[in-house]
Amino acid sequence: MRIAALSRATGVPVATLKYYLREGLLHPGAATAVNQAAYDDSHVRRVRLVRTLVELGRLSIADVAAVVAAVEDEDVPIHDTFGITQDAMVHDVHRGAHADTSEPESAHRLVDELVARHGLQVRPDAAVRDMLADALVHLAGMGVIDLLDHSSPLAAQGTALLDSLVVWFRDMAAVEIASVPETDRAAMVEYTVVGTVVIETAMAAIRRMALEDASHRRFADAPARTRARSGPATRR
Amino acid sequence: MRIAALSRATGVPVATLKYYLREGLLHPGAATAVNQAAYDDSHVRRVRLVRTLVELGRLSIADVAAVVAAVEDEDVPIHDTFGITQDAMVHDVHRGAHADTSEPESAHRLVDELVARHGLQVRPDAAVRDMLADALVHLAGMGVIDLLDHSSPLAAQGTALLDSLVVWFRDMAAVEIASVPETDRAAMVEYTVVGTVVIETAMAAIRRMALEDASHRRFADAPARTRARSGPATRR
Repeated sequence: MRIAALSRATGVPVATLKYYLREGLLHPGAATAVNQAAYDDSHVRRVRLVRTLVELGRLSIADVAAVVAAVEDEDVPIHDTFGITQDAMVHDVHRGAHADTSEPESAHRLVDELVARHGLQVRPDAAVRDMLADALVHLAGMGVIDLLDHSSPLAAQGTALLDSLVVWFRDMAAVEIASVPETDRAAMVEYTVVGTVVIETAMAAIRRMALEDASHRRFADAPARTRARSGPATRR
Repeated sequence: MRIAALSRATGVPVATLKYYLREGLLHPGAATAVNQAAYDDSHVRRVRLVRTLVELGRLSIADVAAVVAAVEDEDVPIHDTFGITQDAMVHDVHRGAHADTSEPESAHRLVDELVARHGLQVRPDAAVRDMLADALVHLAGMGVIDLLDHSSPLAAQGTALLDSLVVWFRDMAAVEIASVPETDRAAMVEYTVVGTVVIETAMAAIRRMALEDASHRRFADAPARTRARSGPATRR
């Protein structure tokens, strides 16, 4: 097919496809004439992978290029390709965050201990470790559960919660990874990206609903000073 | 304090503070002279709220303005302010997604049923409903667990998983919302934003670690065609 047909098949504008070609995200088509090339199903699948990485994974173009390179290089084992993809999906904001305080060290130690305690096979330099450490530093900053302060009475409770999350997610992950189809490498990476992001989104949405419900129960009918002035109690 | 001191106290550049003032995200200081104003602790707290909404909540400036307006208007009950904030935190990509297919209807029905089955107090027009429906449509598109297809043998299993997530998160949310301090409105909103985003991040990170672990167990030692060419098995 010509580039216009590839655009129709994928819903991606021709200008964007040309950009992908220039950046090496999309492999060239077979040259059929000067300034003309033929594209096939492999291009359709690749464009779909790139869109998934950009839209669902929210990867930068540079990160997409790294993932695509790993997908293309069949010398890179598929598990390593997943690792490269997972690293690229960790938002920059979590990398090297809080380097100016002493907290990241204790947060990273807590993460290392958690990984070791459960015997998780997670690379020592996996970006997801920074992601969790960053969240723990923010959590400590909130002043509710400071897992980083071992003298806090809630630290043990917080650690127990982390442990139960690991157990819960390990069981879920085994089922999810077992369902990855052994098709071509690009399809496998696309599947894991969609699986990672979509189930994350679904879980976050359900948790937010539970928070709204809990907020309703605590705050909606509270006779707040400002409540009396705000009109009927049914207003929401 | 002058604006330079406010900048030092918050770590936000003067130019950004002036932008916040122009956009109404930050209330004006007390005029002390022509072109000079004095800022106080309320400004420090407000800047912190805005930074939290932008950096952790990833809100647009327009959405931050809506949240700030709700925080400032004491006629808006605090639970409604939480709702406005939660709506603003749902990424645009989830709103009105997939409007071109028939799937959103069945996805929204599934969400409505879930909310009703558990008696969750979630506003009928809460953006988080779109967020969950969008995730379910994507999940169906993956072809593993299609919750939208009632004839699928896995649909019942998937629904049971959603139910268990609601129960799990409802218990967690009750504890979290109970810990919201009854301080000033801005602090309460900041607390819920940080709590929503930070715990989401921590959970996502732990799940991703579990996925890497499961991927390692399934794929790292598999004698793949490409594995043999890739060097020693310890390479990761």
